[in-house]
Amino acid sequence: MIGNQDTICALATPNGVGAIGVVRLSGDKSYEIVSKVFSKSLENVASHTSHFGTVSSADGELIDEVLVTVFEKGKSFTGEESVEISCHGSSFILQKVIAALIECGCRIANPGEFTQRAFLNGKLDLSQAEAVADLIASSSRSAHDIALKQLRGNFSSELKELREKLINFASLVELELDFAEEDVEFADRTQLNELVTNVLRYVKRLAASFELGNAIKNGVPVAIVGAPNTGKSTLLNQLLGEDRAIVSDIEGTTRDVIEEVLNIEGIMFRLIDTAGIREGAEEIEAMGIERSIEKIDQAKIVLCLADGTKESSVHEVNSWVGELEKQYPTKKIAAVVNKIDLADTISSEGLCISAKSGDRIDALTNWLVEAVRGDFNMANETIVSNARHHEALVKTGESLEKAKEGLDTGITGDFVAMDIRQAMFHLGSITGDISTDDLLGNIFSKFCIGK
Amino acid sequence: MIGNQDTICALATPNGVGAIGVVRLSGDKSYEIVSKVFSKSLENVASHTSHFGTVSSADGELIDEVLVTVFEKGKSFTGEESVEISCHGSSFILQKVIAALIECGCRIANPGEFTQRAFLNGKLDLSQAEAVADLIASSSRSAHDIALKQLRGNFSSELKELREKLINFASLVELELDFAEEDVEFADRTQLNELVTNVLRYVKRLAASFELGNAIKNGVPVAIVGAPNTGKSTLLNQLLGEDRAIVSDIEGTTRDVIEEVLNIEGIMFRLIDTAGIREGAEEIEAMGIERSIEKIDQAKIVLCLADGTKESSVHEVNSWVGELEKQYPTKKIAAVVNKIDLADTISSEGLCISAKSGDRIDALTNWLVEAVRGDFNMANETIVSNARHHEALVKTGESLEKAKEGLDTGITGDFVAMDIRQAMFHLGSITGDISTDDLLGNIFSKFCIGK
Repeated sequence: MIGNQDTICALATPNGVGAIGVVRLSGDKSYEIVSKVFSKSLENVASHTSHFGTVSSADGELIDEVLVTVFEKGKSFTGEESVEISCHGSSFILQKVIAALIECGCRIANPGEFTQRAFLNGKLDLSQAEAVADLIASSSRSAHDIALKQLRGNFSSELKELREKLINFASLVELELDFAEEDVEFADRTQLNELVTNVLRYVKRLAASFELGNAIKNGVPVAIVGAPNTGKSTLLNQLLGEDRAIVSDIEGTTRDVIEEVLNIEGIMFRLIDTAGIREGAEEIEAMGIERSIEKIDQAKIVLCLADGTKESSVHEVNSWVGELEKQYPTKKIAAVVNKIDLADTISSEGLCISAKSGDRIDALTNWLVEAVRGDFNMANETIVSNARHHEALVKTGESLEKAKEGLDTGITGDFVAMDIRQAMFHLGSITGDISTDDLLGNIFSKFCIGK
Repeated sequence: MIGNQDTICALATPNGVGAIGVVRLSGDKSYEIVSKVFSKSLENVASHTSHFGTVSSADGELIDEVLVTVFEKGKSFTGEESVEISCHGSSFILQKVIAALIECGCRIANPGEFTQRAFLNGKLDLSQAEAVADLIASSSRSAHDIALKQLRGNFSSELKELREKLINFASLVELELDFAEEDVEFADRTQLNELVTNVLRYVKRLAASFELGNAIKNGVPVAIVGAPNTGKSTLLNQLLGEDRAIVSDIEGTTRDVIEEVLNIEGIMFRLIDTAGIREGAEEIEAMGIERSIEKIDQAKIVLCLADGTKESSVHEVNSWVGELEKQYPTKKIAAVVNKIDLADTISSEGLCISAKSGDRIDALTNWLVEAVRGDFNMANETIVSNARHHEALVKTGESLEKAKEGLDTGITGDFVAMDIRQAMFHLGSITGDISTDDLLGNIFSKFCIGK
């Protein structure tokens, strides 16, 4: 690693009051700086050992009793000499400790700088570094699983395999180039074509997994539609109440669009555009299906709500579902017949519920889980959940398409080789084999400070 | 320590998203339980060493990459075998790790249970244990200093000294009892009287320090009073704005009474009953000083605001200050002449400010700091900041008063001895030399879980 050898520090634990809070340092002078504020010398300590003592400010004012844990260069998360100081969990104390470290020659870390250093020192590749952020942000089992697999290097090893195939491919093309004048067909065209087709299929599968990866990471988008008074707001409250959902205002959405998140059996569902519903302000005019098109467009799952006490309403909704299924063959659409507590006869077909009493709501939540379980059960398959990775994979695919086209149309080998180099470049940008300062800056600036 | 030997675990760091989160365990089976979920065996590890590996649930599902630090029995905070697991800072992961530990035989710790165990195992006395909670909650330099001194044992050693003096006293009285029949005056009555007077003075000083200790811990109460349109709300906003105060709703206060907290040079000031002021709703009727008496009663510092553009207002406020100083000789009272930006002539005397422009506000904040600096600069004196300690000290004093009275009136020695035993009992309850389950339950239940 070149440059940037200064020693950084930051609060590593969340802000707030807790039993303990941890400040961490990384850089060549970590031991030296901590020794200045700590009551014990760190000169002859072994890596991965903890030491109890006190921390004082540069002018000798006692700050706290702490536990200091040291990590030798090469044996830490960042790969640099590192120290963790475990203090009493008061913001006041943690600020004082950080101030004392800065006075002794540290500087505050930039967002993501610890992870960035780990990447620059070869402890993680770029996709693993990004997985660290995803892992911290994960709030459902499935999102956690993807991030953890990525951190553990599953994704990286698949990419490595892909790169090897591309190198194979490139070497075959280059062999052809070398022997071009002699008109020797060194590599069988059919074989070559087969290879690029295989690699392309693989890249496309990974790129396609992003729809699912994104749904896992950000929640499967669900739209609830229905005429006024079919009980949309009651259903929403029932779902959120029953499942003790984390109700959150998703940042960056407009003021009026509130999204509610439901975690059912480790799968996150995102109920989209529920603002009007939430407030119970069901639209006054008879709401046709047309008015919900935008919402339906964004959804993966659509729940069409009918008033079970009115035959006309059930009929109408069934016809909606028929229409929607034709129009959106990849979406999961369901008719949900509400108010069974008030209805004379209960249909045995479909999802009949009482949003008010909560009766048979579990059938609905089960249906939601089943609707995506198939997709989510790709336990051993690699799923791409990062938009940057997805974009790089799409570009890799485009370059490979061109290469394949070139082969098919008999374009000269050097053009084909150029397309392959392009494909390898895009693929390499995922793991950081190919990286620019801009790219790194962009990735790590999104991390929190201390990571 | 008897009983309670089960192994407990809890999240030790604040809730929320951060780079890392720490789960800690304490109890005889800490190593054994962690070994069941951790990828490495903790069988032959040395105390105070850290180990990198993975944590999985009981059924083998991978949860996270973690750093496990172990502490041998007798060498940990609690005095018991302990383990700290440092995970990625996601609530989801931390919950999973805790769930896995519970499945392997841990139970969730009660609030304060780690510290309670430290106390029961003799690692801390009771006043030190209470200092841990104060230290975590401290948000100003002075509150932090008191808590830290208490944790470091300064207060405990003074109490120990006091107890020794009482034992001395008791032994003298008991000697008298032994020789009562022989009519030998073993201990000089004057000496005895002197001793109890000294101890009593000491206890009273400590008890009296609570007013200051409480002010340090919860903020020095400041009242702002003044007629309508003298600029109270402007001053309040200026003070809060200028000093980037932490504006907080103090819990437990009524809905209408909002207290604002100002941290100036490490000293916390609590602006009391500012609800009306804050909203700019200055009372419509001409507000006499009588209407503010309740507020003034609670305050340590009173700022009487005058409109500097009206001679009558300045005159009125000066007379208020005179009255108040007579009535409350221990309070600090100041006339603050506002609106100097609009006044024709500016008095060179007193605190003349412009709340609107902020002009000379620093003179006012300096005055506030100076008003209490003398009190706060008792750097080497012990200050009692805990209401329970204060109560015990008051009771100790009462028992000693009785003992002194007994000596003075020549009551029989066994009554005097009883009073001294009472005094020693109350004193001992502070450090926990004397403690009951109720007392301990009451103290530790106020801690947060994980401490």
